[in-house]
Amino acid sequence: MSMDLLLKNICKKQNPTVVGLDPKLDYVPEYIKEKAFNKYGENLKGAAKAILEFNKCLIDSLYEIIPAVKPQAAYYEMYGTAGMKTLYKTQEYAKSRGMYVITDGKRNDIGATMEAYATAHLGKVKVRDGEYTPFMGDSLTVNGYLGTDGIKPLINVCKEYDKSIFVLVKTSNPSSGELQDLKVDGTPIYELMGKMCEKWGEELPGAYGYSGVGAVVGATYPEQIAELRAKLPHTFFLIPGYGAQGAGAKDIAAAFDENGLGGIVNSSRAIMTAYKKEGCDECDFAGAAFREAMRMRDEIMSYVKQIKLPQ
Amino acid sequence: MSMDLLLKNICKKQNPTVVGLDPKLDYVPEYIKEKAFNKYGENLKGAAKAILEFNKCLIDSLYEIIPAVKPQAAYYEMYGTAGMKTLYKTQEYAKSRGMYVITDGKRNDIGATMEAYATAHLGKVKVRDGEYTPFMGDSLTVNGYLGTDGIKPLINVCKEYDKSIFVLVKTSNPSSGELQDLKVDGTPIYELMGKMCEKWGEELPGAYGYSGVGAVVGATYPEQIAELRAKLPHTFFLIPGYGAQGAGAKDIAAAFDENGLGGIVNSSRAIMTAYKKEGCDECDFAGAAFREAMRMRDEIMSYVKQIKLPQ
Repeated sequence: MSMDLLLKNICKKQNPTVVGLDPKLDYVPEYIKEKAFNKYGENLKGAAKAILEFNKCLIDSLYEIIPAVKPQAAYYEMYGTAGMKTLYKTQEYAKSRGMYVITDGKRNDIGATMEAYATAHLGKVKVRDGEYTPFMGDSLTVNGYLGTDGIKPLINVCKEYDKSIFVLVKTSNPSSGELQDLKVDGTPIYELMGKMCEKWGEELPGAYGYSGVGAVVGATYPEQIAELRAKLPHTFFLIPGYGAQGAGAKDIAAAFDENGLGGIVNSSRAIMTAYKKEGCDECDFAGAAFREAMRMRDEIMSYVKQIKLPQ
Repeated sequence: MSMDLLLKNICKKQNPTVVGLDPKLDYVPEYIKEKAFNKYGENLKGAAKAILEFNKCLIDSLYEIIPAVKPQAAYYEMYGTAGMKTLYKTQEYAKSRGMYVITDGKRNDIGATMEAYATAHLGKVKVRDGEYTPFMGDSLTVNGYLGTDGIKPLINVCKEYDKSIFVLVKTSNPSSGELQDLKVDGTPIYELMGKMCEKWGEELPGAYGYSGVGAVVGATYPEQIAELRAKLPHTFFLIPGYGAQGAGAKDIAAAFDENGLGGIVNSSRAIMTAYKKEGCDECDFAGAAFREAMRMRDEIMSYVKQIKLPQ
């Protein structure tokens, strides 16, 4: 369970990519902003409503070919309470279009507090006799620096609500090695973290060989992708760093197994701002996003060939 | 700058403690919940309003003796958008009472995304010609697993708006050692992370010897507190784990320097639920919180003696 729904979506669309919705206001076409500001004011609410409209148009344009969205919490928190409402509405809309929602929050804490994050993003909260869904993720990215105490509460919520998590293992940024590449008795920290994912994942087994505990592994480190794929056979990868951060499809090829499964590659900026790069009319931003998403899919599928779910 | 405002507050109140506002709905007295549910409904909004009222009463009761509050973001996110509004309103209210606000969010990401978190929690966001404050923290807890790329954007925002951060170094939970105690060429990872704090802090020097980059160091590990105090002379400590997690004032004593500065000790549950432990009428919850806060202050000050700002 847990991660299986994502794998099914990937197989159905024959596309192991996820669109990151990290919507800076600069990315939103003027005509959408104008409309939102006129209606709601030139304030946080106006900005948040413009972003929601932008996201919805992107989702409408992409949901038939892309299996998942990854809204980045920071860009919603930046617009305060109004922004958080847009996060919820974006998640809800993506789910209504059948997309798997990975909330990129990199949350971390311990015990009851981590349980609160798990409830917030993957579970339901009880208020008297009612149950409410605070946010609408199918999966949440998390940071494992605090150890098992910080992951265990998530596992319980994932079990109860059939959800998944992705733990930061080897991140895509240039300085990720400062800590993650340091070696403990000859083994780099990212590998130790990866092995913890394998262990945590034992409690959330999946029907297709991959557990409900995935790992974030940057496309910018192809050698580590290959190494970790070999060492973490039950851990599905969320792969950032493609496109804007410089990695290409070739760098990612080693993430995939003989069934074409093993990872999902994120692209945010390149899809959201494709209309700027294309130089087309801004009204065609969703069309440009679609074209870039198709290009990315085709480029990655030229390495993956075919995706099938093992029997 | 940056951390200096906290140090001044601590000195003024002669109290190196912070009250953690991690408000589970179970902690809120029935009469407050009843009133909120009647007015706003038995739903997320009703729950969030009850928590806000609870927090405000606690702040009113405590602000004259306690220099800072630490709202834990998870407990607000758990109530969705309504909860995030309560986070904002709680921060705003605490600031109006002169308290230093440490938002416990343990946020982490890289580059532009970390900048978005920094803007969300410590800065201002521009919307056309206006500037807005998404959330009202003076300081934010962060996780340094991603390295300098994840901290640098915070430093810039801290400089611009005179704010501070606390980086997770040695956390208070039982399994914190799984990763943090591992040794790289004989040096534990928590110490390496601590040394990065010292380095990052060079860009945010303070008037009293402590930089704007603090460290989270758990009260449950007294030996590490002593060791880190000696090795990180410019890094101020945020110390969780006192009380409910089992540590006492004696365990923390080594965090303080000859001026009685060096750290601030958090207590959440013991203060918020003091009325349950005391067995007093629930209407006196704020009084019980005050009594527990006084007890904690006196216990810790029996080791610290006097706090003064170095000239």
